[in-house]
Parts: sequence; C-alpha cells; structure tokens
Amino acid sequence: MRGVIMDAPGTIRVDDRDNPTIQEPTDAIIKIAATCVCGSDLWPYRGIEDVDHAPMGHEYVGTVTEVGDQVSSIEVGDFVVGSFFASDNTCEICRAGYQSRCVHAEPMGALGTQAEYARIPHADGTLVATPGQPDADLIPSLLAASDVLGTGWFGAVAAEVGPGKTVAVVGDGAVGLLGVLAAKQLGADRIIAMSRHADRQALAREFGATDIVSERGDEGVARIRELTGGLGAHSVIEAVGTQESMMQAIRSTRPGGHVGYVGVSHDVELPGLELFFSGVHLHGGPAPVRRFLPDLIDLIWNRTIDPGKVFDLTLPLDDAAEGYRAMDERRATKVLLTI
Amino acid sequence: MRGVIMDAPGTIRVDDRDNPTIQEPTDAIIKIAATCVCGSDLWPYRGIEDVDHAPMGHEYVGTVTEVGDQVSSIEVGDFVVGSFFASDNTCEICRAGYQSRCVHAEPMGALGTQAEYARIPHADGTLVATPGQPDADLIPSLLAASDVLGTGWFGAVAAEVGPGKTVAVVGDGAVGLLGVLAAKQLGADRIIAMSRHADRQALAREFGATDIVSERGDEGVARIRELTGGLGAHSVIEAVGTQESMMQAIRSTRPGGHVGYVGVSHDVELPGLELFFSGVHLHGGPAPVRRFLPDLIDLIWNRTIDPGKVFDLTLPLDDAAEGYRAMDERRATKVLLTI
Repeated sequence: MRGVIMDAPGTIRVDDRDNPTIQEPTDAIIKIAATCVCGSDLWPYRGIEDVDHAPMGHEYVGTVTEVGDQVSSIEVGDFVVGSFFASDNTCEICRAGYQSRCVHAEPMGALGTQAEYARIPHADGTLVATPGQPDADLIPSLLAASDVLGTGWFGAVAAEVGPGKTVAVVGDGAVGLLGVLAAKQLGADRIIAMSRHADRQALAREFGATDIVSERGDEGVARIRELTGGLGAHSVIEAVGTQESMMQAIRSTRPGGHVGYVGVSHDVELPGLELFFSGVHLHGGPAPVRRFLPDLIDLIWNRTIDPGKVFDLTLPLDDAAEGYRAMDERRATKVLLTI
Repeated sequence: MRGVIMDAPGTIRVDDRDNPTIQEPTDAIIKIAATCVCGSDLWPYRGIEDVDHAPMGHEYVGTVTEVGDQVSSIEVGDFVVGSFFASDNTCEICRAGYQSRCVHAEPMGALGTQAEYARIPHADGTLVATPGQPDADLIPSLLAASDVLGTGWFGAVAAEVGPGKTVAVVGDGAVGLLGVLAAKQLGADRIIAMSRHADRQALAREFGATDIVSERGDEGVARIRELTGGLGAHSVIEAVGTQESMMQAIRSTRPGGHVGYVGVSHDVELPGLELFFSGVHLHGGPAPVRRFLPDLIDLIWNRTIDPGKVFDLTLPLDDAAEGYRAMDERRATKVLLTI
C-alpha cells in the first residue's frame, strides 16, 4: 500500500509500505477514506522533535475490512472514526474518561495513518461506528472528530466552559478554531478568539466567536482584562503549546478560573510562584477524544456542527509533501489527504 | 502594644509598636487572644524571602474592641476568626469562592498579627464571629482555622477529595497534617500520609491517615503507585512548595486525577511536557480560607474536629524568638503564641 514516510525533518516521501495485518485478536484493519496532516506533525517536520524514516499520521476515518477474533462491537463494512490513541475503554483510567492515558494506550502515530490502510489496536475500545455510510460531504467533519475537534472540545471541557462563562481562546490553528466551536456548543456567553489572520478570524466568528483580539503576549492579556472588567476570562483554551501562549493563557484567566491546555507543550517551564498566586485551575494534555466521539459523531451526523470547515486544502495522498509544506508555511490551516 | 518584628533573617524582636487605629470605616480593631508562627514565616527567617524590620504574623483569633462606621455584621465584644487575607466578600471573585484574590484583598501579614491588637480591613467580609465566647480549649483549633486548617482544607478541596477516592498527602507540617484531617472529613476512602517523623506519623493516623509512606521523591512515587494498583492516587495534596515536593505530587497522581497544591512554590519550575502528558488537574494557591470558615468553625464548635492538636509548643508572645527557632530547627511543628 501507499503511505507517508518522514525520512528526516522536512523530507516527506510517499512510498510503498507493507499492508497491515491483524496482530492481536483485538485488532481491526480499516481502509482509510481520508486522513490529514496535524499541527503536531510539524514538530518533527521542523526538527523540534527527532524523526528517522517514520511512518506518519494519526488521524483517520474509514471502513473496516477485517477484525480479530475477539472484536465484538465493530464489524466488517462499518464506517468508523477513532482517536489518535488506541484504548481499551474498559480500564479504570478509561472509565474515568482519560482514554488517551489508558493503561493499554497505543499512539496511532506509531502505526501511521497517512496511508491506504491501518491496523487499529483495541478496536472495540478505540473505534466508534457511524449510524450508516456517511454522505461524502460529512467525511471532513468526521475526520476532524478524530483529533482536532476532539482536542478543541477537550480544551473547552478542561477549561470548564459553560453557560454564563466568558471564554478566551489562545491559538487560531484548527484546534483553537474548533475550541471556539466547542465553546459555542457548550453554551458559553462570550467567546474571545485571539487571532491576527483575517481568514481565521472569519472562521472563528462563523464558529461562534463574539470578539476578536489580535494582540498577543502582555498586550493580548491586557485586552482580555479590558474586556472582562479587569478580572480576566472565566475559561481560557490554550491551543498552541509554547511558553508565550501558556503564559498568555494563564495571565488571561481570572483567579479561580480554568485554563484548558491542549497545545503540546514544547520547551515550556511554568514559573511556580506566579502559577501559585494566579489561583487558576490548570488541566490539559493529550485529549481523551474517545470520551467525546459518540456525541461529536451525533452532532456531525445531525448537521448541527460543521467542523470540517477547518480543512482549507485537500490533496491526494501522493501529494502529502505539498500538504506538509503548505501547513509549515501557514498557507493552509489544515490539510486533508484523500486516498 | 507589644508585637513581633523581624529585623532581618533570623533576627526576631518583641518590642513596642503603635496601637492600631481605625483607618477606614470598614475596619475593625481586635484584641488578639492567640496567634502563631506559620511555616511561611520561616521563608524570610531563613533569608529565602527579603525582610527588613517587618511586623510579623497573619493568623489570629480575638475579641472585637472597636468597629468603623460602616461595619454592620460584626460587633464590639464578638469573638472572631479571620483569614490571612482581608477580603470584602462581595466582589465577583469573592462570590466565586476565591476571597484570597478579592479585588480588594489585603494581606494580613503586612499588618502583623503577632501582637496584642490588630486592625482588620473589610471587617464584615473578613471576620466570622463564633456562636459565643469559646471555651479556652477551643482557642487553638479556632486559631488553626485562620490559616493552616483552612489551607489544608483548600488543598483537599482543590484535589477534589471525596468518597471513593484514594488521597496522598505530600508534606507532614501543620498544613499537610490538616490536609489529612480534611480528607477524612470530606469522606476519602484511603488517605496516605507521606512522612518520615514518628510523631507526625502518629498525628496523621489520629487525623485519619490509613497508610504511611516514609519514602520521598521517586521512591515515594513508586510506593504510592504500588499502593494504588500502579495508577497513582486520585487526589494528591501538596503542602510543601519545593520543586521536589511538586514533582512528587504530580507523579503520584493518576491521569485525570487532581493535585491540590498549597505549599507556597519557591524556586519551582514545572516542566511543560511532563505536566502535559501527566494529564492531571492542577489547582492551588493562597487558600481562600474565608470560603470555609463558617463550616470549619461549626465543626470545631461541635467538637467534631480538633485541629488545634497541630500546636505542639505554646509560648508567651514575648518568647516569640524561641518559637521561631523551634520551628526552624523542626523541634516544633507549629507554635502558638499566647497574648
């Protein structure tokens, strides 16, 4: 089969890879309908994480072609969505809603879903079947549920977004934009998107942002305070993962408020004394997307939400290298790869 | 009046200070019945925080002797308990339960309650009157409510302690020990106190600890994991404030679990990537003791709890220097000063 391989930072190749096979009786094999390039794929692409001839990709939707002997809830022919972490969904950590930290968690990135087929471990726990075969126009949104929607949603839940709350969103990538969408669905009163790009500001407004703040860093914090009676937002979603964005998020939150951080924290050191006196709640990490998948699939299936709008470039799998370049150069927010 | 002054690190003097007077119509003056030395007073004593001829002390109980014109809920003659932050208890932050970050918060430490009298700003918002004049044996417990009990209690609440939970407590000072007491009152199933001192272990058991772990650092974390099926505790109360204790707390917590940290974080830098992948909730800061005072006073008044047991040395105010020395040398857990 064809699949994406990152040979080294900046070097993307689409080449033949072995077709995946059932390894464990709890596995399934799926024929991938669509996959995409994640903001986190840019970390190795830019040399910030090590990479060496690695298969790439951890987002996927597709059709089940084979199941192991112990798979009972997923059948051949089902159209399925899964998370970027495989999880058994039965252990104590999963039952508490933290499937991305399942005691048997396996990162899908190691298996590489930017390919024609993929092996899905713990298929019963990992995959959720859609109510039927999806219309073609739903596929981008279902694919978004696999990671960026689920991650933005978790950021909003971790930030305790809800009715009566003012929410600020740091980061205008796909995850931040879908954090805006999640905040709207979760009933926030006011949603402040922090963005300097006109196209992303427009999509943020379409997803439910009531205010746009284009300032960053201390100036951005000052603007959020101005907009919130000097107190700061109740809930802040952090969707970048840098020192500046984390401090911007913490400083934009009122004492007793909540920061939900879902940008993978690179080279971040949080100063203890400032965090202590901030009095904020801090929660985040790799999103337990599986917790939210059934509800997210419902919202997409009923056409209540259209998160697939974050894909602004669609390319065939064989042009993956151009997809990486477009995201790296910020010419695209999020690139969908068709198989 | 007599009052404690720290001239420089390690130098404590009890000397004459001006009697406090009403400065604002919302002030009250109280005659202090008992005060104490806080673990946080040891930071300047040890030269870790700057200090220069400062009045000391922020914990207090006593009798109201004078009130300003706008004070309506507190009367002359009331026996009162207050927090180490004065707060109006009416602003949006106070109403959300974060009185220590009140928009009009004033740190009582700046006023110095290791003295015969103290001025209490925002008396209506800050002070809670006891149901009557307390028996003498209740005074240590009421004094504990002013800071260490309220702080340990907030640590437990911030760590989301409750029925069905396994709780670990990092730190066996007065706050950690009262975190154990709080966890017991809040219905925790299992309470693991981390302590290497036999006398503190005994008090932890008396307050409700079901297990004692004497190991620290990585070994302590390994023991907590052994005791929790490899997962970590649901809730961890951090009551020290060092890099080691914070990391011990975070690493002892299961994914999705809660760290409540109330040790003032000195020279702490939290590594972003490790925190991200830990998946824990982090909440803490200066405890909003005022939120809990009415309930804590009830529990003490009804003799349900006896937090005053953390005081293991009682001295007259004039011997404050010896009290500081005893705590600095760990000869005493907590020193009560009688007036």
